Amino acid sequence: MRANKLPTEEIERDPAAFADRVTEDGRFGFAAEADRYRLVVSRACPWAHRVVMTRRLMGLERAVSLAVTDPVQEIIEGDPHWVFTARTGSPDGRDPILGIHALREAYLARDPEYDGGVSVPGLVDVTSGHLVSNDFDQISEDMATEWGSLARDGAPELYPQALREEIDAVSAQVYQDLNNGVYRCGFAPDQRSYDRAVAAVFDRLDALEEHLTGRRYLVGEHITLADLRLWATLVRFDAVYHGHFKCNRRKLVEYPALWAYARDLYQTSGFGDTTDLEHIRMHYYRVQTGINPTGVVAVGPDPRGWLTEHGREALGGSPFGEGTPPGSAPDDERVRPLAEQGRGVGEVWDAQER
Amino acid sequence: MRANKLPTEEIERDPAAFADRVTEDGRFGFAAEADRYRLVVSRACPWAHRVVMTRRLMGLERAVSLAVTDPVQEIIEGDPHWVFTARTGSPDGRDPILGIHALREAYLARDPEYDGGVSVPGLVDVTSGHLVSNDFDQISEDMATEWGSLARDGAPELYPQALREEIDAVSAQVYQDLNNGVYRCGFAPDQRSYDRAVAAVFDRLDALEEHLTGRRYLVGEHITLADLRLWATLVRFDAVYHGHFKCNRRKLVEYPALWAYARDLYQTSGFGDTTDLEHIRMHYYRVQTGINPTGVVAVGPDPRGWLTEHGREALGGSPFGEGTPPGSAPDDERVRPLAEQGRGVGEVWDAQER
Repeated sequence: MRANKLPTEEIERDPAAFADRVTEDGRFGFAAEADRYRLVVSRACPWAHRVVMTRRLMGLERAVSLAVTDPVQEIIEGDPHWVFTARTGSPDGRDPILGIHALREAYLARDPEYDGGVSVPGLVDVTSGHLVSNDFDQISEDMATEWGSLARDGAPELYPQALREEIDAVSAQVYQDLNNGVYRCGFAPDQRSYDRAVAAVFDRLDALEEHLTGRRYLVGEHITLADLRLWATLVRFDAVYHGHFKCNRRKLVEYPALWAYARDLYQTSGFGDTTDLEHIRMHYYRVQTGINPTGVVAVGPDPRGWLTEHGREALGGSPFGEGTPPGSAPDDERVRPLAEQGRGVGEVWDAQER
Repeated sequence: MRANKLPTEEIERDPAAFADRVTEDGRFGFAAEADRYRLVVSRACPWAHRVVMTRRLMGLERAVSLAVTDPVQEIIEGDPHWVFTARTGSPDGRDPILGIHALREAYLARDPEYDGGVSVPGLVDVTSGHLVSNDFDQISEDMATEWGSLARDGAPELYPQALREEIDAVSAQVYQDLNNGVYRCGFAPDQRSYDRAVAAVFDRLDALEEHLTGRRYLVGEHITLADLRLWATLVRFDAVYHGHFKCNRRKLVEYPALWAYARDLYQTSGFGDTTDLEHIRMHYYRVQTGINPTGVVAVGPDPRGWLTEHGREALGGSPFGEGTPPGSAPDDERVRPLAEQGRGVGEVWDAQER
């Protein structure tokens, strides 16, 4: 995720700056090896979140370590940058493994002339300190299909060959209208752009509501990458997109099927336990001062709704197909308890800032 | 309603600039006479709305005429001002009765040295062109109790002697925590002020939800001024306060009793038929650029929800006590149909601006 400036044109995620692929056989130059890579993310960012979920579901925690940045970017040379701070576990302001303060240092290690945007997720080669890829979809696809024996026993098939066409088609619609669409609403420079974007957001949600009324998952009978991509936007919807990005035709909780679908996944290992709603609210409201000049963080809905019964088991399907659920998150990757993700945002964070 | 600047202290409605009282006996200098006064309002403004509702319920339309300003204030000498434009029925940019473009002219007619804020509602003496009062609560109370024979036959008792203490007590809480509280959330200069204000908003809504679960109206068995004051904030809640002012713990529609109470009143003559949600959204989102720099107007929830069944008749009580409902609005005061208050905000208004 990038940028707090208000663009003058339609918002699109920048093309990946670097997109080297990591595979078990190393056929693109980078071999999947345990302890060689570090994944730099923000828990606020939906583009990073899908990779974090893939890594958990595939059981790649021991193979590729995780570095969590502060949700509030730091202005360095006029641009907002993802950095390591005491607030997210780096008391000296440096990532303990990579030794860097800002993710941009891994971009510059790779290419000293690089002057484009810096975004999470960033997959970094620990040995060289170089950024390998910030191509969020490719990183996910490779983790789901190419990391071979590094994946856990019982890892699910998130991108099964027979369903790829359907997964890609659904994902393209979700990307255009929702993943990116909410940003087009929030950063719309004028009424006309906003009107168009917000119509697309809710047309897509309406269509998905219908699609998910009779089926448990987006494609096939199990969780696929398509679900991860949709869910990363849904879990942020009522907390930030509804108000801060003006996607306020309806809340997610006003869509019975979508809200039940979202809760079903929230309560599935790898989803809710990789989500921190406080990081999400802090990032959007504090950093995007172009649309929220005061930086005041809205309190948001009571997060405990995520834990209410959803009844989606009745639709059949099984989350992991012939696979098994992942174990719980490693101790050092636990997010704060849900009940603490929804109260006194200002109190908690300001106390650390004082 | 005033101001688009971001104050540095807590928000409070300015004290009334002028507060001359109009009564049947003229004991304060101004007598209630037919055709002598003109009420200048914005349909966006909750402080003006309570007076518009009182006037309708009391049947004072023929006694005191109504002048509706453009919801988007005009910047005059650096301050936002309520003005008459073609968009709200003044093709030449002047009110046809008062002959003024901006409400401030009636303030300056009264006191050429006046340099304070200008707010709606403004009660203007047509004969002199002077502002008589911008004291919204006093204007309402006097219209409800002091205009005597100018009120219609069957006018309700909105401020009955026996209930005044209770009405005043409830109104004071509603004023502090809701009417003003939502502004304190929206214009909070820092996290701490916001956190305090938003907690008060939802503590008060929670208490009112309980209060209104078993009773149809706030005080007694009939509609009183207390209901008008609360309702003026409730009807704006999901359309503007929830997102734009960050009152997003819950939507009004997530409070079963409050939402049914609000719909019951919406469907009562004098409430929904004096409401224009498009004026409301246009004003808040376009004018308050201190908290919405792009001026983009959020689409808001589908307004047709206001017409759904509420079932509150079962609680007993009767809206007008021994009185009768007012007739329908005069032809020249009709608001646009509800279904047209919720779609294509930008389209409708931009078309007129081009």
